[in-house]
Amino acid sequence: MAEEGVSISTDSPVKRPREEEEHSNGVSASTLSSIELEGNKEQPDCISSVIPGWFSEISPMWPGEAHSLKVEKVLFQGKSEYQNVMVFQSSTYGKVLVLDGVIQLTERDECAYQEMITHLPLCSISNPKKVMVIGGGDGGVLREVSRHSSVEHIDICEIDKMVVDVSKQYFPEVAVGYEDPRVNLHIGDGVAFLKAAPEGTYDAIIVDSSDPIGPAQELFEKPFFESVAKALRPGGVVCTQAESIWLHMHIIEDIVTNCRQIFKGSVNYAWTTVPTYPSGVIGFMLCSTEGPPVDFKHPVNSIDANDSHNKSKGPLKFYNPEIHTAAFCLPSFAKKVIERKSN
Amino acid sequence: MAEEGVSISTDSPVKRPREEEEHSNGVSASTLSSIELEGNKEQPDCISSVIPGWFSEISPMWPGEAHSLKVEKVLFQGKSEYQNVMVFQSSTYGKVLVLDGVIQLTERDECAYQEMITHLPLCSISNPKKVMVIGGGDGGVLREVSRHSSVEHIDICEIDKMVVDVSKQYFPEVAVGYEDPRVNLHIGDGVAFLKAAPEGTYDAIIVDSSDPIGPAQELFEKPFFESVAKALRPGGVVCTQAESIWLHMHIIEDIVTNCRQIFKGSVNYAWTTVPTYPSGVIGFMLCSTEGPPVDFKHPVNSIDANDSHNKSKGPLKFYNPEIHTAAFCLPSFAKKVIERKSN
Repeated sequence: MAEEGVSISTDSPVKRPREEEEHSNGVSASTLSSIELEGNKEQPDCISSVIPGWFSEISPMWPGEAHSLKVEKVLFQGKSEYQNVMVFQSSTYGKVLVLDGVIQLTERDECAYQEMITHLPLCSISNPKKVMVIGGGDGGVLREVSRHSSVEHIDICEIDKMVVDVSKQYFPEVAVGYEDPRVNLHIGDGVAFLKAAPEGTYDAIIVDSSDPIGPAQELFEKPFFESVAKALRPGGVVCTQAESIWLHMHIIEDIVTNCRQIFKGSVNYAWTTVPTYPSGVIGFMLCSTEGPPVDFKHPVNSIDANDSHNKSKGPLKFYNPEIHTAAFCLPSFAKKVIERKSN
Repeated sequence: MAEEGVSISTDSPVKRPREEEEHSNGVSASTLSSIELEGNKEQPDCISSVIPGWFSEISPMWPGEAHSLKVEKVLFQGKSEYQNVMVFQSSTYGKVLVLDGVIQLTERDECAYQEMITHLPLCSISNPKKVMVIGGGDGGVLREVSRHSSVEHIDICEIDKMVVDVSKQYFPEVAVGYEDPRVNLHIGDGVAFLKAAPEGTYDAIIVDSSDPIGPAQELFEKPFFESVAKALRPGGVVCTQAESIWLHMHIIEDIVTNCRQIFKGSVNYAWTTVPTYPSGVIGFMLCSTEGPPVDFKHPVNSIDANDSHNKSKGPLKFYNPEIHTAAFCLPSFAKKVIERKSN
């Protein structure tokens, strides 16, 4: 459930705080012309996030800035048990999936996130066989995991069925991941699912979460990382979405501190570019459990372009072994904080 | 001079095209409350780019998207012979310099751009002595060049004196570069300046230009690159601002094609993260002339943290040798295009 702090713009693409609204020109949301909707028409709270022509992303997670995309058409709006779900056709980024007012993926740049969050961990170990995905209901991470021919079994635990259904309907090239027979979909709480998993089950766990405000909050906390460590085999790997070095060094510091206590193999931070994420970058915590050592910076496992599992999905657009290694090189301001915490 | 295609938002943080404005709710710019100005109050065309509370960046260079920053106070607005110049205090990115409606730097993230555009070329050769900066009127590149104790002479040719003056007044930590006695400021056309430079003068030329719409247009064209090559010594290096792999692959393709024809040493593309630039990244073309070979990917020159030239400026915030090498690793979609052009 989204916290109340997540405000959605109601009268302007960029939200002004309350005190400023009192001095505004009196234009209220109701004077804005409506836009054509194909989805649920009974969600005024959702609709308000889209003003005529544009969608703007506002959050207390990145105060004082907003990224906006021009909307061609809103294709879906709904309110699940957990969050507001919206899909729109943008004019220059393809279709866009929005949860609680925050962009989760666009067709134009989703390759960067999905390929990096998946192949950074899976190319760092030989022959991953059992893989767990927490979150990632859109299916993009599944699409990438299923490029690996060594993989025999993929569990995915997504809390919100609406995300899965919406992705299958509007993002077939992302949700194609669900078509792989190795995939087992569990709708439910990823925290509980992992807690119940037998010890040492997985070679790799990928945590494709939204921000720590809302349903994903627990996925940034210590008890969850403890469950992850327990569910991994010795020398198993985890990759979790870990926010932006430009915006969230305090969150990253906490995650690094927690991981350093829990994961006795190695603890690393990597990052990549995603234009439609705040500040244009997103990071990943990559950790391994005690056991055969994992050198995340030098991939040992490659993706066979000619493998049948891979071929049907088209070639990788973003990931390659060089960008894998480069992703672990940090700007000095981030390196200083992260390496202090890691040592 | 800015082309007419560069539209500045007049009634909303995100500009709607004319045809949509006809169907809008009739709210005109004149109904928006004004904001406090300290600078020139007689520039309605400039003022219109800032609506109450926020600045939004709109350009045909990145259609369908806009990045917005919350404005605390507009500190300066002016119209020079070449462009509109604005400085505002943002609520979360420090002071911001805007030329023709496009963000040039913010205090929060300028380190990434200035350090990378400077140290990528200067750390790739031993003992650079004579350095030329084209554009870069804010002085940030000078600040970085002057960290190199081997440098004896720095020419800078900036076309717009207003940029220099405004930077000295509002961005002292950027314009500090001008205080170095090795710096020689020339106000004028960089293209003409370089054309007139004696052959083989410089060890390194840094082209810190704005986008190819406006006064910087010529800096992206072949005759300019020919002047650059002529003004460099054998085995000299150039680094030019070269747009975003996410937004401008067609421009990058053209630049790579031109450079490949002109620079007979090596031709490389590197990139870095800058949150307040469109798509969150900016790239650089790094080329060398025929002569002693230059391996841009492996820096040979380091910055001495204890050198007196360096110490007064504080430590580097972004650049380090690992991120230097990583900057040349490209996502597959960009690599495919750039390496095809380079070979």
